[in-house]
Amino acid sequence: MSGREFFTARTVAEALAEFRPARRTKAESVGLAAALHRVPAEDVVAPAPLPGFARSTVDGYAVRAADTYGASDGLPSYLDLLGAVRMGAAPEVAVRPGGCVAVPTGGVLPEGADAVVMVEFTAETLPGCVEVTRPVAPGGGVVRADEDVAAGTALVPAGRPLRAPDLGMLAAAGVTSVAAHARPRVAIISTGDEVVPPDTAQLTAGQVRDATASALAGLVADAGGEPVQAGIVTDEPGALRERLTEALVDADLVVISAGSSVGARDETAGAVAALGTVWCHGLAIKPGKPTLLAECGGVPVLGLPGNPLSALVVFRLVGVPLVWRLAGCEDPPPEPARRARLARNLASAAGRLDVVQVRLVDGTDGRAAEPLFGPSALLSVLTRADGYVVVPEPATGLDAGTEVEVTLYR
Amino acid sequence: MSGREFFTARTVAEALAEFRPARRTKAESVGLAAALHRVPAEDVVAPAPLPGFARSTVDGYAVRAADTYGASDGLPSYLDLLGAVRMGAAPEVAVRPGGCVAVPTGGVLPEGADAVVMVEFTAETLPGCVEVTRPVAPGGGVVRADEDVAAGTALVPAGRPLRAPDLGMLAAAGVTSVAAHARPRVAIISTGDEVVPPDTAQLTAGQVRDATASALAGLVADAGGEPVQAGIVTDEPGALRERLTEALVDADLVVISAGSSVGARDETAGAVAALGTVWCHGLAIKPGKPTLLAECGGVPVLGLPGNPLSALVVFRLVGVPLVWRLAGCEDPPPEPARRARLARNLASAAGRLDVVQVRLVDGTDGRAAEPLFGPSALLSVLTRADGYVVVPEPATGLDAGTEVEVTLYR
Repeated sequence: MSGREFFTARTVAEALAEFRPARRTKAESVGLAAALHRVPAEDVVAPAPLPGFARSTVDGYAVRAADTYGASDGLPSYLDLLGAVRMGAAPEVAVRPGGCVAVPTGGVLPEGADAVVMVEFTAETLPGCVEVTRPVAPGGGVVRADEDVAAGTALVPAGRPLRAPDLGMLAAAGVTSVAAHARPRVAIISTGDEVVPPDTAQLTAGQVRDATASALAGLVADAGGEPVQAGIVTDEPGALRERLTEALVDADLVVISAGSSVGARDETAGAVAALGTVWCHGLAIKPGKPTLLAECGGVPVLGLPGNPLSALVVFRLVGVPLVWRLAGCEDPPPEPARRARLARNLASAAGRLDVVQVRLVDGTDGRAAEPLFGPSALLSVLTRADGYVVVPEPATGLDAGTEVEVTLYR
Repeated sequence: MSGREFFTARTVAEALAEFRPARRTKAESVGLAAALHRVPAEDVVAPAPLPGFARSTVDGYAVRAADTYGASDGLPSYLDLLGAVRMGAAPEVAVRPGGCVAVPTGGVLPEGADAVVMVEFTAETLPGCVEVTRPVAPGGGVVRADEDVAAGTALVPAGRPLRAPDLGMLAAAGVTSVAAHARPRVAIISTGDEVVPPDTAQLTAGQVRDATASALAGLVADAGGEPVQAGIVTDEPGALRERLTEALVDADLVVISAGSSVGARDETAGAVAALGTVWCHGLAIKPGKPTLLAECGGVPVLGLPGNPLSALVVFRLVGVPLVWRLAGCEDPPPEPARRARLARNLASAAGRLDVVQVRLVDGTDGRAAEPLFGPSALLSVLTRADGYVVVPEPATGLDAGTEVEVTLYR
């Protein structure tokens, strides 16, 4: 057994800035109903202006604005009621000087009109005659035919995951499918002689069920990826290399939860190095130091520590942005975060990023973040946490009472 | 055309606190791979302790802690190497006084041992003899058999949507499916003579494609619900009531985007009132005042304003928590939010909640929130926004420079 490890260690900041595989998934056509959070491969351009016609924004009367100038309660303008616009139909009558046409919210502005006066400032005192008690400016009560979107401009931009209102915008423009990057296929390989599938009913001494693969699959899905369970590999020499070779065929990213013993880690590094280029072996992060970043035939490979907690911490910080980038999104959607005061001192080493799981508790002076300590072998530290605090690389610790940002789990 | 509306107006706070239909979706069995963000209907209890055996957390030597007391570089303890533990296997040898057994990270602690000393503080100076240069306390380098989870305690709690690490915890315990609330079925009805389906290639004058239904479907999916498109209903008397009756048969929530004219809104209120109890008609929110909350035969019904922007603002604030609650989650996952300074004054009326769409820009003194103004008929106000700011009910406005919390879209 060897205590030595050869690390080409990097910081998390370096990894995020410099480990940037060029691979992107192909574009595919995705229908609107399935397009939420998918990343458009190009700007989607409006084929026509929206709403497409000058439209009333109020219930009222379409008028020539000039006919209302000076109108007041004491001295109303009187206009001839020429007709009414029906919803969803073309106006059957134009507005001439001294006249008006009733129009509902959303109705088409009739020809000749340049504004709509709200019904609240009118009265139909005699049949066919509308009294207007407040002036309206040209354009008042109206949206222009291209005020929402002009033809040829972007309805939604490339690279930004589609949000609910984007789907509405695309629907409004009649765009019912969009060219989006395929979901990155993320192959998840677990390693270790002790690891058995989750559906193993009875364990023998020393066996543990594979927790990391299921949890990683969740993080991959949250990042818009498609998790592909590539199974469990024993520590037998050559076994990982074989499975990795298979996985590289159609994965966009391969993640290896790399066994927790030094021997298992060496095996992973060897298999990866044989098939590609190791960018770093060792990350200045706690937990998560024995992380490996590599590229094998154009496919990024992420070797994670064997402890589930460490593996998930690293995947969240380094893997999630990678999955988004593979799908063409350089700027992943924000995670929830809240400010809180640290309930205890946190020790750290300069030059290392510390990720500390915390619970949020209501303290006497506001919200407090209570660090959850415990061996990183314990998954319960993560499931009990509300989120985590990062002690940045330059800091040597944080004092109790410091205001920190807690990234929240959801 | 009438300018009057009969409102039973409530505040948003009242709606959230008091409009609480008792309906919950049934529990169903969900496999782990599909369980992310699903809501467990009951606590999932650990059938056995985890990790299930005392386990080393380091690469090193299992020892009796007492045998290392006083050990130092100058005065090491010398222990007989009795054997080695293999990963995933039961130890074949026990630790007796003066002896030790090599054990990898994650290996089973052999009988007789109560600690593991890290390999870094040892040397195998002679074959079969291990020199220990630092003492270890009982329990050092070890997790207990039930340290992660004790048998009979909750692996994951009822009512909290499952997060990625929860899936790992369930897998570790051999729980491969979970009793979770069914996704609430949310029927979405659009109304209005002017509204046509998104796949309508050519519009005639006054027609608009249904934007709201697609956008609402996105918000429903984000809230863990299952959107059911229940189509477009004309303003013909009776048509909405008929469609609503159909939708109530198997929906957990019905959402009506209620046409934007006063006539269309009255029609909606009439149809809903005929089939159930209207809890409020009118909400003290801008945009979104003409909102209707009702319950028809045990199914909550949400009548939304006709403008897409207003409809989405109201659904996000009132509808999203309702969807979560239908699935048994009283405390929905947090949304991302960031602090920023208001770039401009915001006017508001006391007693009304104002929701203002903003863009985040990097200002000279940090991040600034720039309000996006424009008629609420414009969907582009939403698609251009990074998030929104709430001007609370008591405030009469917010001054430029005020620090505000921006809820971010993702």
